[in-house]
Amino acid sequence: MTLQTPIGKYAILLASLDEAELELFKPALQELSYCQGRVGSMNMQKVIAAAETAAKRNGIIKDQCYRETHALYHAVLEGIEGVTRGQPSIGEMSRTVGLRFAIVRGKPYEDESEGEWIAAAFYGTIGAPVKGLEHETTGLGINHI
Amino acid sequence: MTLQTPIGKYAILLASLDEAELELFKPALQELSYCQGRVGSMNMQKVIAAAETAAKRNGIIKDQCYRETHALYHAVLEGIEGVTRGQPSIGEMSRTVGLRFAIVRGKPYEDESEGEWIAAAFYGTIGAPVKGLEHETTGLGINHI
Amino acid sequence: MTLQTPIGKYAILLASLDEAELELFKPALQELSYCQGRVGSMNMQKVIAAAETAAKRNGIIKDQCYRETHALYHAVLEGIEGVTRGQPSIGEMSRTVGLRFAIVRGKPYEDESEGEWIAAAFYGTIGAPVKGLEHETTGLGINHI
Amino acid sequence: MTLQTPIGKYAILLASLDEAELELFKPALQELSYCQGRVGSMNMQKVIAAAETAAKRNGIIKDQCYRETHALYHAVLEGIEGVTRGQPSIGEMSRTVGLRFAIVRGKPYEDESEGEWIAAAFYGTIGAPVKGLEHETTGLGINHI
Amino acid sequence: MTLQTPIGKYAILLASLDEAELELFKPALQELSYCQGRVGSMNMQKVIAAAETAAKRNGIIKDQCYRETHALYHAVLEGIEGVTRGQPSIGEMSRTVGLRFAIVRGKPYEDESEGEWIAAAFYGTIGAPVKGLEHETTGLGINHI
Amino acid sequence: MTLQTPIGKYAILLASLDEAELELFKPALQELSYCQGRVGSMNMQKVIAAAETAAKRNGIIKDQCYRETHALYHAVLEGIEGVTRGQPSIGEMSRTVGLRFAIVRGKPYEDESEGEWIAAAFYGTIGAPVKGLEHETTGLGINHI
Ligand SMILES: [Mg+2]
Ligand SMILES: [Mg+2]
Ligand SMILES: [Mg+2]
Ligand SMILES: [Mg+2]
Ligand SMILES: [Mg+2]
Ligand SMILES: [Mg+2]
Repeated sequence: MTLQTPIGKYAILLASLDEAELELFKPALQELSYCQGRVGSMNMQKVIAAAETAAKRNGIIKDQCYRETHALYHAVLEGIEGVTRGQPSIGEMSRTVGLRFAIVRGKPYEDESEGEWIAAAFYGTIGAPVKGLEHETTGLGINHI
Repeated sequence: MTLQTPIGKYAILLASLDEAELELFKPALQELSYCQGRVGSMNMQKVIAAAETAAKRNGIIKDQCYRETHALYHAVLEGIEGVTRGQPSIGEMSRTVGLRFAIVRGKPYEDESEGEWIAAAFYGTIGAPVKGLEHETTGLGINHI
Repeated sequence: MTLQTPIGKYAILLASLDEAELELFKPALQELSYCQGRVGSMNMQKVIAAAETAAKRNGIIKDQCYRETHALYHAVLEGIEGVTRGQPSIGEMSRTVGLRFAIVRGKPYEDESEGEWIAAAFYGTIGAPVKGLEHETTGLGINHI
Repeated sequence: MTLQTPIGKYAILLASLDEAELELFKPALQELSYCQGRVGSMNMQKVIAAAETAAKRNGIIKDQCYRETHALYHAVLEGIEGVTRGQPSIGEMSRTVGLRFAIVRGKPYEDESEGEWIAAAFYGTIGAPVKGLEHETTGLGINHI
Repeated sequence: MTLQTPIGKYAILLASLDEAELELFKPALQELSYCQGRVGSMNMQKVIAAAETAAKRNGIIKDQCYRETHALYHAVLEGIEGVTRGQPSIGEMSRTVGLRFAIVRGKPYEDESEGEWIAAAFYGTIGAPVKGLEHETTGLGINHI
Repeated sequence: MTLQTPIGKYAILLASLDEAELELFKPALQELSYCQGRVGSMNMQKVIAAAETAAKRNGIIKDQCYRETHALYHAVLEGIEGVTRGQPSIGEMSRTVGLRFAIVRGKPYEDESEGEWIAAAFYGTIGAPVKGLEHETTGLGINHI
């Protein structure tokens, strides 16, 4: 059960690096199924919806399959725990986020029977609802799918 | 108050990339004060202590200054929220972590008056206390110092 | 202080069993004061209000008595922790619930001096705001009243 | 994606009903893969280990498969959120639990493609580490497997 | 249901003021049943036990009555949420507390039928397990009894 | 690093005592920078905004400085953990607050190098959105600034 393909690390890099920086990782990324997106909101529901919609539109998860939606949902929620660090809300806590995210699907483990897993990573800023009054934040969720 | 030096992103990269991958970011990193470390434990107290000790030994924070210890402590705790995603404990939840971490200190904002900030990033694995039954995890905390 | 009347167990059964299944427990239930209800919402406030309103309308708690309202409120909140498992919100977390609930009031302990207690149980589904993309959930709160 | 086999409800019943009461549900239970167990402890790690060990010994999940261990672990953790209602610890919060639990594996959804899911339910008492100073508690976690 | 006797405020004052400062409030306090205590620990269980033991020794709650123990326990836990602000643990989070506490029992509401309530307040310091690396903290829990 | 000026205690007193009771502490308070305010709401965002606005209007923190806004924000959030005790929301949990608050800025430590810190204290009532169905609550957050 050796972890040979770090889908979580690739998700973090896809969410936090710019195009030029990502060049270095392109060969490894080509073996994976992934998508990237952006969302800025004071509304957590929009953040979750943005990640789910991007994953479905890009065929990372099957649209009408609850099993896959459930796997992604919990990965996203775990990523949001990292983003919000203790109070899983944004607007209600008088803060806003500007996030880039990436969803990566692949087989992280050497052993074929471990199957596919999904990683949801977020990187961006969180802060007061005033431009510039913000600092960086990140979060990563991993789930079997 | 533009965010021009993403100390959080550099902390994540320092915690998750290997030496070769970090080469690309060396020029930017040379402008910052940082340290790296590793810790594997079922005991959260050891994880926190490892980060604090590394930061003090490497002169990232002043040893006898509570103000700086307090700034780092809360950055570390926020990073741990991302690592543990909901239950801020490891051994009690029957899981263990194997983490690399980085502490970065610098001036993220263009405006000089925003002063110094500190970032604590963790990247590694979390899982059952059995080799290989684990998946990736990450966490980032940011604080003014 | 032996626990002889499991009001919590009866509340769970009242919330999760259908009429036919409940037949078996009717003799025991006749000794208790209870009510049942249903609520479907993305709004936690409506879930809490549905439970409180049902309890007041059915005379399980006294309407104008804060002491009893407080006892029920905390029982309901503890039940909701089980329903939401970590993030005490539904709509903001982009999920919806369809719940049956039961409030049971009685004397669980053999010793008369332990007095009356209240149980609030929920059973139903939680999931994406799309019909069918949901799984079961339950929660139970107990309080002295 | 209609929910036709409520594995969560069966898990709750298996954890909370006695042998005689369970008779009524025997026909439905025979279609499912499940196990039951008991654990009393102030140590959460023992509670989690008891559930995992029972599931592995009874062949509900595959022993050396991380994918299945991970699915069960998160189901158990969600069940524990219901049991502990807010502070995911027992001994440290000066309380002890006496729990019966059940792990049920099956196909809850009509649509074959939704595959197998796992439910972990707990029912019992939580209270001061003094015999009798305790009340009922329950918790249910559900995951795809 | 007007709140005429603020038992929570008196508990806070009893936990945070020194003898001389408390003089001013002595007339009001004489109408109440209360006790005070101190506890320093990295172990939450000791903090909870100190409060419970003090309350029982001073006759604020009845020793063998679970109903009263339960009321106090939840008041204490709510007070600890304020003390720990997000992670309900101390030693595991690599921190220690030095607290004074007070338990006050009385009838806060004008309306006689609202009966007795209990307040548990904590005031002191929380910080690194090094003398002086600490800041103030407080917490208050209120419950019907 | 002896704690010689308990800014947290003064913040609690400023939030909970009336004018006459505060007379006793006036000499000590004159050495500190502080403000007081009131807020009643079911909306947490309004509570946070009230504290921030009062602090800025009274010059306790610098308006356009993120560093100071960030320090206050986390102090306020920690105070709110005490107020809400476990579920960091009010309206969504079907409750409302009526709070007095105080923000105090000063140098708590003997050692000059520990610099300035900020305390945010809340005291008031929390309860059902019906006049009188409420009990006392408090919370205190402390941060370096
Ligand atoms: Mg996991
Ligand atoms: Mg922050
Ligand atoms: Mg209880
Ligand atoms: Mg789920
Ligand atoms: Mg209350
Ligand atoms: Mg602190």
